[in-house]
Amino acid sequence: MEYRIEKDTMGEVQVPADKYWGAQTERSRNNFKIGPSGSMPKEIIEGFAYLKKAAAYANHDLGVLPAEKRDAIARVCDEILAGKLDDQFPLVIWQTGSGTQSNMNVNEVIANRAQVLAGGKIGEGEPVLKANDDVNKSQSSNDTYPTGMHIAAYKAVAEVTIPGVEKLRDTLEAKSKEFMNVVKIGRTHLMDATPLTLGQELSGYVAQLNYGLKALKNAMAHLSELALGGTAVGTGLNTPEGYDVKVADYIARFTGLPFVTAPNKFEALASHDAIVEAHGALKQLAVALNKIANDIRMMASGPRSGIGEIFIPENEPGSSIMPGKVNPTQCEAMTMVCAQVMGNDVAITIGGTQGHYELNVFKPLMAANFLQSARLLGDACVSFDEHCAQGIEPNYARIKELVDNSLMLVTALNTKIGYYKAAEIAQTAHKNGTTLKEEAVRLGYVSAEDFDQWVKPEDMVGKIG
Amino acid sequence: MEYRIEKDTMGEVQVPADKYWGAQTERSRNNFKIGPSGSMPKEIIEGFAYLKKAAAYANHDLGVLPAEKRDAIARVCDEILAGKLDDQFPLVIWQTGSGTQSNMNVNEVIANRAQVLAGGKIGEGEPVLKANDDVNKSQSSNDTYPTGMHIAAYKAVAEVTIPGVEKLRDTLEAKSKEFMNVVKIGRTHLMDATPLTLGQELSGYVAQLNYGLKALKNAMAHLSELALGGTAVGTGLNTPEGYDVKVADYIARFTGLPFVTAPNKFEALASHDAIVEAHGALKQLAVALNKIANDIRMMASGPRSGIGEIFIPENEPGSSIMPGKVNPTQCEAMTMVCAQVMGNDVAITIGGTQGHYELNVFKPLMAANFLQSARLLGDACVSFDEHCAQGIEPNYARIKELVDNSLMLVTALNTKIGYYKAAEIAQTAHKNGTTLKEEAVRLGYVSAEDFDQWVKPEDMVGKIG
Amino acid sequence: MEYRIEKDTMGEVQVPADKYWGAQTERSRNNFKIGPSGSMPKEIIEGFAYLKKAAAYANHDLGVLPAEKRDAIARVCDEILAGKLDDQFPLVIWQTGSGTQSNMNVNEVIANRAQVLAGGKIGEGEPVLKANDDVNKSQSSNDTYPTGMHIAAYKAVAEVTIPGVEKLRDTLEAKSKEFMNVVKIGRTHLMDATPLTLGQELSGYVAQLNYGLKALKNAMAHLSELALGGTAVGTGLNTPEGYDVKVADYIARFTGLPFVTAPNKFEALASHDAIVEAHGALKQLAVALNKIANDIRMMASGPRSGIGEIFIPENEPGSSIMPGKVNPTQCEAMTMVCAQVMGNDVAITIGGTQGHYELNVFKPLMAANFLQSARLLGDACVSFDEHCAQGIEPNYARIKELVDNSLMLVTALNTKIGYYKAAEIAQTAHKNGTTLKEEAVRLGYVSAEDFDQWVKPEDMVGKIG
Amino acid sequence: MEYRIEKDTMGEVQVPADKYWGAQTERSRNNFKIGPSGSMPKEIIEGFAYLKKAAAYANHDLGVLPAEKRDAIARVCDEILAGKLDDQFPLVIWQTGSGTQSNMNVNEVIANRAQVLAGGKIGEGEPVLKANDDVNKSQSSNDTYPTGMHIAAYKAVAEVTIPGVEKLRDTLEAKSKEFMNVVKIGRTHLMDATPLTLGQELSGYVAQLNYGLKALKNAMAHLSELALGGTAVGTGLNTPEGYDVKVADYIARFTGLPFVTAPNKFEALASHDAIVEAHGALKQLAVALNKIANDIRMMASGPRSGIGEIFIPENEPGSSIMPGKVNPTQCEAMTMVCAQVMGNDVAITIGGTQGHYELNVFKPLMAANFLQSARLLGDACVSFDEHCAQGIEPNYARIKELVDNSLMLVTALNTKIGYYKAAEIAQTAHKNGTTLKEEAVRLGYVSAEDFDQWVKPEDMVGKIG
Repeated sequence: MEYRIEKDTMGEVQVPADKYWGAQTERSRNNFKIGPSGSMPKEIIEGFAYLKKAAAYANHDLGVLPAEKRDAIARVCDEILAGKLDDQFPLVIWQTGSGTQSNMNVNEVIANRAQVLAGGKIGEGEPVLKANDDVNKSQSSNDTYPTGMHIAAYKAVAEVTIPGVEKLRDTLEAKSKEFMNVVKIGRTHLMDATPLTLGQELSGYVAQLNYGLKALKNAMAHLSELALGGTAVGTGLNTPEGYDVKVADYIARFTGLPFVTAPNKFEALASHDAIVEAHGALKQLAVALNKIANDIRMMASGPRSGIGEIFIPENEPGSSIMPGKVNPTQCEAMTMVCAQVMGNDVAITIGGTQGHYELNVFKPLMAANFLQSARLLGDACVSFDEHCAQGIEPNYARIKELVDNSLMLVTALNTKIGYYKAAEIAQTAHKNGTTLKEEAVRLGYVSAEDFDQWVKPEDMVGKIG
Repeated sequence: MEYRIEKDTMGEVQVPADKYWGAQTERSRNNFKIGPSGSMPKEIIEGFAYLKKAAAYANHDLGVLPAEKRDAIARVCDEILAGKLDDQFPLVIWQTGSGTQSNMNVNEVIANRAQVLAGGKIGEGEPVLKANDDVNKSQSSNDTYPTGMHIAAYKAVAEVTIPGVEKLRDTLEAKSKEFMNVVKIGRTHLMDATPLTLGQELSGYVAQLNYGLKALKNAMAHLSELALGGTAVGTGLNTPEGYDVKVADYIARFTGLPFVTAPNKFEALASHDAIVEAHGALKQLAVALNKIANDIRMMASGPRSGIGEIFIPENEPGSSIMPGKVNPTQCEAMTMVCAQVMGNDVAITIGGTQGHYELNVFKPLMAANFLQSARLLGDACVSFDEHCAQGIEPNYARIKELVDNSLMLVTALNTKIGYYKAAEIAQTAHKNGTTLKEEAVRLGYVSAEDFDQWVKPEDMVGKIG
Repeated sequence: MEYRIEKDTMGEVQVPADKYWGAQTERSRNNFKIGPSGSMPKEIIEGFAYLKKAAAYANHDLGVLPAEKRDAIARVCDEILAGKLDDQFPLVIWQTGSGTQSNMNVNEVIANRAQVLAGGKIGEGEPVLKANDDVNKSQSSNDTYPTGMHIAAYKAVAEVTIPGVEKLRDTLEAKSKEFMNVVKIGRTHLMDATPLTLGQELSGYVAQLNYGLKALKNAMAHLSELALGGTAVGTGLNTPEGYDVKVADYIARFTGLPFVTAPNKFEALASHDAIVEAHGALKQLAVALNKIANDIRMMASGPRSGIGEIFIPENEPGSSIMPGKVNPTQCEAMTMVCAQVMGNDVAITIGGTQGHYELNVFKPLMAANFLQSARLLGDACVSFDEHCAQGIEPNYARIKELVDNSLMLVTALNTKIGYYKAAEIAQTAHKNGTTLKEEAVRLGYVSAEDFDQWVKPEDMVGKIG
Repeated sequence: MEYRIEKDTMGEVQVPADKYWGAQTERSRNNFKIGPSGSMPKEIIEGFAYLKKAAAYANHDLGVLPAEKRDAIARVCDEILAGKLDDQFPLVIWQTGSGTQSNMNVNEVIANRAQVLAGGKIGEGEPVLKANDDVNKSQSSNDTYPTGMHIAAYKAVAEVTIPGVEKLRDTLEAKSKEFMNVVKIGRTHLMDATPLTLGQELSGYVAQLNYGLKALKNAMAHLSELALGGTAVGTGLNTPEGYDVKVADYIARFTGLPFVTAPNKFEALASHDAIVEAHGALKQLAVALNKIANDIRMMASGPRSGIGEIFIPENEPGSSIMPGKVNPTQCEAMTMVCAQVMGNDVAITIGGTQGHYELNVFKPLMAANFLQSARLLGDACVSFDEHCAQGIEPNYARIKELVDNSLMLVTALNTKIGYYKAAEIAQTAHKNGTTLKEEAVRLGYVSAEDFDQWVKPEDMVGKIG
């Protein structure tokens, strides 16, 4: 491999000749060989591209950066956003906890790429842009990284998580309406209970997802606040007057999302409670989705020795050894994703507690876990929706058989003959393997006519819809 | 010990003669000897007292319970709320996951105590109240326990957590204003950084607590929704028309808190995402408080070999062996509480995921962990406020010494001479153990006059307040 | 209430006249009103009693404490162990993270109680014992608290957890043998799979518990190491030569458990990885028990609309509204305990990470969570064993019906006709609602005779036992 | 793109013509678009390659597979192990929870690649190998996936984690010996305490790592047990006699690691407590490493306003805005890794609890989290060792200044003048900003000569080494 020499304040470093990055990126590559290379999420790099461009615009507007430099920066940022420089960001999550080296990676790539775009050669002649003085002007890693993290997190939630969850929610809502009159047995403690309709059951899932979405949207306000303008410790040292508001405005414009400058920059650097808060909502959604997926696979279990009340799509052969087996695989992918999100929540929580003084240095950890959760949840909902939820159909015969057979229909008699006599009927039928009606009549507590009148599953499900 | 015979649908049980509880409570006492007895939180019992009274009122209004029975129920509920029957609730958290046995404990105590209040003897004569048919009328454990849980949780948050956090927040806010002009060194990565004021630093803590409070208040809406009226599986079987709205209304009236009936009862029984959601906010507060307490103990560390920038109250001898030692004990209590809350969050999350079909049967676990977190956080904030935060004072001499000595003041030169030359000055001073000014002048980058003009800590902290 | 005046190095404090504790205990009571009073686990106080007595013996043997003082200390320690002074330890978990105040609570109670036992009055005359100089001789909170914690933890595991788990394990092992020939359907992905025997299934549970027990026993070695002798920072300052070995020896003698002195006292004060390690094993047991309890409640589900393959004891009425309902309540208590243990593991982990320099100051948090887990797991296993596992019985009719009906018996044909043809048979039977045999013959892949010969559930379960 | 048609028991599927995978892999690609493609860890694929080859050998030895087929399978497995087919495994973690589709991916690639190696064309002519009947012979996904998981996990721990931790441990041990006589101030509660040596302090870290290594090695036995031979549900259906022992033996031979067949196959399929157990040990190491890294960055903090007792290597510029700043970046990478491992532990724990009946279907989740933790910990230790630990040097001047100045040296006087007078000396010196000696003499408690004799830091550190 060929190399060129790059320099930073510590001295010279050999860098692969075909790469745009500079000395500090290369130092980080060598100093942090931890896990697979390039693990820093590309959404973070995109967030940097947005903010570097916005900073260039704000700096120019405020008179501290010439138009040519602004445009040179913006041009490379646009290339990054277009995915043209994806192989220029080799750094890992497990670097300095401020993400300084990824900030410098972006600064270096922008400066060197601009040199080339201007017809120059890297490291030769007057530099078009200086990485620290121009590209990073009015910035610090300490405010850029959390800004990139919020841009990436907000975008992921808005563009992947929420649409995914809503898509599944819509399907479940439609199914809930469709099956609103399908009376089935209820189950509590996994045991037979009084009836409800399949539509009612699904409506509970819809409500869970709606609460989760509401919680997530509540958390978006905090996530929309950007640290940029705080620079090194939150005081905004080395920024021109009005910069923080203006740069957030440009970011909002470039991303089309409602970003604003954080009202307290000290909080925005030293803590990442916005990430903790929003991930708490992702975790809540994981809790809900786990319940839903688990119920569905239990209700679809069988085909002959399970519950078997619903059918779900048969998407692929389920076993390499058991011929003809089909499994609730989408439920399994979903519940694994949920477990991951719950684990990520702990990693984020721990990272969130450990800020010291003016800076939290668990930023890349928190960002990576957040982005993974946001994406997995969104993707899993779409997958689950398309390959499972949309295909849910009741097994009407099985549903009817189970509800008609249930001893818990006896509950309808409570208000007629009292809890104790009702219990006696149910217990006797259970012991004898008979029907409620038989025992109700035999015990002399209810006439056959009254029984038929009083004990109707379809009258036991309350108001529906 | 003397016993009397109590009966339930399964038969006879010996019960201590001096207790009001009945057969099912006694069965549970015997069947669940897990951990200390009486661990079911008393806040839950109080929640039950509110809801049993409210149910009696609603049932009467809707024509299914006579006035005498309503009043008999209400009278015992008032005794429970007054703490007169505290020794009547011996059950543990680790019972049936629906809390059925604690519901029956309350039903039994109310029925038997009413018998005595009416001048009767327990188990003799016509019962004034029947535990299942009267006290539990229009109810199921499945909707009462989560209702009691929400009442208890909402009250704990509203009456303990929020006031506690706000009290501490107010003190930190006042201190932030008081010390807004105290310029000190900033620290990032635990290393010397550019200056800020002590007031700015504290303002970040205030912001964290305000975000946490906002998140907690966002979650209160979900917590204000009550399952009552859903009965066994959410359909409201065996409740009179209009009951759910009315009973929530009575609960709101009796507690003085804005409770409403849950719009979807299936969700309210089968999942407890409201608890997951609200505890997520408690966890966020724990994250914030951990950061704050940790910073304060680091800044107060010493007295001679630590950071020593602030003084905190000396509350008690700190060591049984080291004479004269004083420790940041309130910080330690707080951070232990935070760790507990973070652990509780995982317990609640796991419990929350494991609802099956129409019922989540991790209710007592979720309730107990939630109530512990809510109380510990509130109490710890009050303790921390009174015994630490209120007494925070700057060590002015130390603060000044450290900031004046800092190499990171060099950052002010970036916009004058560029990042690279500034770095050279700082590195040289670091190596030589000299001052920035000496090296700046010696290197010929800045004149002594310019240096004094440009490098002023008090000009490096931005707009303050 | 009447008070007397106690003093410590900071001055005078009013203490309730009827209590033995002194100034520092009272300061802690006033300074840490966090959660219920007296929450410091009494097992920790017992641990202190053992170690204070042992220290007195060791100090005497090594010539630094007279025999009278030794005996005075030992006498009060014995009273504490006999439970006679239970109301003398009012402090909470959420105090200083070194547990200093509980150490002083014990020191003060021993000194003052000894004064009374000697016929004196507290605070008058020559003190029989001085709290710091005599009772705490050759000790620091920093080595006594972790020593008390290890004593308490080891005892709880050895006396509660392990016997409880073994009791349940023994029952499951006996049941496994008893049902070793009961052929039933297997289930993977909750879906019908090839058969196994009920005894085989239970043998998996036994194996899980055995692995968990092994892991727990592996961790006991670390837990048996005592910090005592390290004093303030691990160097053993102010201890006589040979003290650490001797005092551990006395503790071993007094407790009857194999305690030894920790080879590295710095580790023993600054980290509590022994607690982390042993609780990791408790968590593993929780994982295992959760699986077991969950399986059992699913297999016992019904009575008419569930799986219904086994019967479990009907211990109590299951519902306040559904007459005759019975629920798998022991499984629910167990799974709630497991969730708690998993949450506690996170609290302990976080506490474990946060030691600073020479001391971890999350000791009471770690101790309390550990002891709760150890006790809950042990108690829950006993409860589950007595009220559930011992009563497990197969529902033979149901088991036979399900296994005979299963489409997955087709797997036996793989080695005869290949996976693809076998799949076709199963899929066709599934679609047509017919039997495997019918379709096997109709498709012409297997003769009726061969089918009967090849497809026998009892031949598909491998070697059993 | 060009496609060919592949078939499975459900019908035809279009597959990219240039890939070896078949119908089921392609179904999975389409059905599980969750997160980045190809996320199934390649270590798992390697584990499959080992076990498929071993199964072919065992099958041949036991007479159920001809030598040509064995060799055809083995040849492709060797290609996989040599990394030649890396682009043939496109599936994700978030698929079926048994990993069936990755098992089939391997089966399909082996069968199709063998066809090509034999000079044939995929899908044409007599197949050299059938994916289910030959490559998967005597296997099920249910026993192969956990076998692959154990192979991968054991290898990662043995080859990455343990060597990495040991390397760091060795450096710390050498440093501990080197600095065994460097007397420095101790700190408890972050506050000044009695002295110890830097070597003693480091010896505590060494002890922590040794305990962690021991715990990890304890867990390896469970991890060395392989599920293979259990097939579908643990009974070993469709395997020849003696297969399980033989196949484990081949795996041991091919990997050079001490694998054995699991004594209870039901446990090995239905639970993954071996993963839970071993990851518990990884988490313990994370707890230890977090403490170590945290201490080191605090001790190295400064350069002028921190603790500053040690120097650590200056590896890269620390700030994009603060010139000359250097940060403890290796400590930050390490603590982020630790937080990740703690989060992964929760994901694994949750996955571990959720096995149902005969199968745990959180296998890929558990495998992926385990392998990430094992690798990150190992890599991070190496990085930390090379770029931080090896370069630790004492700041002798600073260390001496701090220890000489410490008020806690007064503890040496306890045994001479008692705790109370010693406290008075320390408190007075603290209040007056004077030295202990001055106040000791002024108060008349100790003569100057005695003070010099009794209070020597170097005599307060106990036996060293």
